[in-house]
Amino acid sequence: MKNSPIPKPKLGEPYLLTPGPLTTSYKVKEAMLRDWGSWDDEFRAMTRDMRSRLLDLIGPGSDMYDCVPIQGSGSYCVEAMLGSFVPKDGKVLVLANGAYGLRAAATLKCIGRTYHLLDKGDYLPPRGDEVAEILSQDAAISHVLIIHCETSSGILNPVQELADAAHAAGRKVLIDSMSAFGAIPLEAETVKYAAMVSSANKCIEGVPGFGFVIARKDELVAAKGNSHSLSLDVEAQWSAMEKTGQWRFTPPTHVVAAFVEALKGHKAEGGVAGRGARYYLNRDTMVSGMRELGFETLLDDRWLSPIIVTFFCPADPKFSFNGFYEAMKDKGFIIYPGKLTVVDSFRVGCIGQLDHYVTHEVVKAASDALTHMGVLSAAPPAAALKERKKLAA
Amino acid sequence: MKNSPIPKPKLGEPYLLTPGPLTTSYKVKEAMLRDWGSWDDEFRAMTRDMRSRLLDLIGPGSDMYDCVPIQGSGSYCVEAMLGSFVPKDGKVLVLANGAYGLRAAATLKCIGRTYHLLDKGDYLPPRGDEVAEILSQDAAISHVLIIHCETSSGILNPVQELADAAHAAGRKVLIDSMSAFGAIPLEAETVKYAAMVSSANKCIEGVPGFGFVIARKDELVAAKGNSHSLSLDVEAQWSAMEKTGQWRFTPPTHVVAAFVEALKGHKAEGGVAGRGARYYLNRDTMVSGMRELGFETLLDDRWLSPIIVTFFCPADPKFSFNGFYEAMKDKGFIIYPGKLTVVDSFRVGCIGQLDHYVTHEVVKAASDALTHMGVLSAAPPAAALKERKKLAA
Ligand SMILES: Cc1ncc(COP(=O)(O)O)c(C=O)c1O
Ligand SMILES: Cc1ncc(COP(=O)(O)O)c(C=O)c1O
Repeated sequence: MKNSPIPKPKLGEPYLLTPGPLTTSYKVKEAMLRDWGSWDDEFRAMTRDMRSRLLDLIGPGSDMYDCVPIQGSGSYCVEAMLGSFVPKDGKVLVLANGAYGLRAAATLKCIGRTYHLLDKGDYLPPRGDEVAEILSQDAAISHVLIIHCETSSGILNPVQELADAAHAAGRKVLIDSMSAFGAIPLEAETVKYAAMVSSANKCIEGVPGFGFVIARKDELVAAKGNSHSLSLDVEAQWSAMEKTGQWRFTPPTHVVAAFVEALKGHKAEGGVAGRGARYYLNRDTMVSGMRELGFETLLDDRWLSPIIVTFFCPADPKFSFNGFYEAMKDKGFIIYPGKLTVVDSFRVGCIGQLDHYVTHEVVKAASDALTHMGVLSAAPPAAALKERKKLAA
Repeated sequence: MKNSPIPKPKLGEPYLLTPGPLTTSYKVKEAMLRDWGSWDDEFRAMTRDMRSRLLDLIGPGSDMYDCVPIQGSGSYCVEAMLGSFVPKDGKVLVLANGAYGLRAAATLKCIGRTYHLLDKGDYLPPRGDEVAEILSQDAAISHVLIIHCETSSGILNPVQELADAAHAAGRKVLIDSMSAFGAIPLEAETVKYAAMVSSANKCIEGVPGFGFVIARKDELVAAKGNSHSLSLDVEAQWSAMEKTGQWRFTPPTHVVAAFVEALKGHKAEGGVAGRGARYYLNRDTMVSGMRELGFETLLDDRWLSPIIVTFFCPADPKFSFNGFYEAMKDKGFIIYPGKLTVVDSFRVGCIGQLDHYVTHEVVKAASDALTHMGVLSAAPPAAALKERKKLAA
């Protein structure tokens, strides 16, 4: 990686080719080397700065929106969004094509909100005409939940098309942009979401510990009293923060400091466009290199996100995910197991502090791992290719 | 502080004399300088190690219990405990004498569990005979919630007495030991709680970002399906962790690494006894020094915790909390506003990486601050002393 302008992990730990936690810069982690009082002015200023930097990322019209950080993991933020913005008598159309869509549906079930689940299976994208059809038949549906990048397959769902279909039918749009926000545009003016969520440790490249909701201010006001949970009440967090500048409950101060540093790095790289460009290049070098080795991607190019890519496991009986994982880890790369139900797969992330020099090395490491395992061909089983035909259909 | 064996904050930041976030060691923060994959074996081993170290702190009988970490702040853990262990038809007697007791009651209201609130006001301790009386009159009460140290006044509530009263009436005990666990014994065998919660950034001296529940295993099993929240479901987190060794959702990896380092420091200091001894000495030097300056504590010695101490604001009109706060901060100490409803007060914490050499300096700084403000006497107003008489009564 001698040509890469991005320094290698300083303490020699492997690259995390996983969609969060991911590899962060040393500078981001160094911001955690001091303690902050959560009540103190300096920390309040940091919180203010963070919120306004995040709002800057949604483009024109951001003055209609506000940003509310939420302690906990990304799933907490999804639950907070659903519980806060969907009134108790609301109904949500969940557009699912993977684990995170299904988890959102399970969340609605748990918190007692009705929903209609459009389950497209492991990866097939929901489309605008399906949404229009469902909405035309169910007037009770008040909100449509879109998963921006469904990280379990890596598919980039057609957010604009889906949001347009929802709005054409007069419904509100909620977006889980956990793994996409910061690298793929999600502009307020064009997508017109009521609210969206993302997390500190995805494309902004902070460390894990909290996430955030970006919501229309009128939606925030209207959310008062909706929440099924005291801790996950977005409106309560927002109004306390507006009044005092403080987080309602103890914030993860060090993680916040790291995130503000990460936001500065994001801006210096050229914001969403600059960050996205690097990730696309990561993906392209990785995918083309892996294809040269004989690996096949689950998705056609048109659906491939620059976030994480699913590859089929080779059919060769000498291949095993665990063996491959360990061989890759030995070379300094941590990959991720797949989440497909029908065929075996693995995933490789394109996000975090890495560039195409690194993804080039990832391909070399994969090649060495195959040799080491004695795998002669990386071609997937016939079942995998049959699976993929569904997408083309 | 030249005699102190505990190094000063390395980056020159002020001491946090606040009950979390608090001053942590540089070594604890340094543990956050690398990235960890949450799926990887090394991180799973770290999680396992953390859970077993925490169980070691509850003494004999810990094999009947398990430890379940929960992402988010301490309030999230309280909500998770209440939602998971109190069945939907359960009823909780909340023993409140301050903000955190009241927040627990608000949580129960929000999540739809019935409760009886014994509200003792700003600080008066609930007593065993009151508990016995209430329980004898309300057979529907299934659980008693005890706040161990009510951090809003600093009172150390009589946990054993209260737990004994609950058990004598055949009810289960839940404990919020957020600010006490790790410094004040809370042993399974004697207190016999069904479950308790605490947080990473209190007496164990980690950084904020998650907390943990320690619960009887049979209670964990019985909690299945109780929770009002997907994210805050203790049983679901536990069974996923037992099965896979992983956190159900993305863990705050860096904060966990820091916490494991903090647990090692805790053990090296002599565990709960050693940690507590240092805090008691911090409190004693601080309280006696402040009293020499003319300050008065809200609480009689018998109720003073070694966690945080409430002092009345001086009656002198030249005294203002903001002026005092800034003067103390200039000297390198961040203090905390009071939370009493009747008279003005401020709080000074005794916990974190500091010892009696430091608390000695705190007293000197307070003395200088008074001089700087032109305050001639630190004596509180008559109303404050009248208030305190209630406690003696
Ligand atoms: C699209 C999406 N939604 C939700 C989540 C859940 O986030 P967490 O694991 O932080 O709870 C993730 C995590 O990767 C995600 O990618
Ligand atoms: C006794 C007690 N309970 C609950 C909490 C809430 O914790 P958090 O601020 O992390 O939500 C605190 C915080 O100091 C506390 O001291």
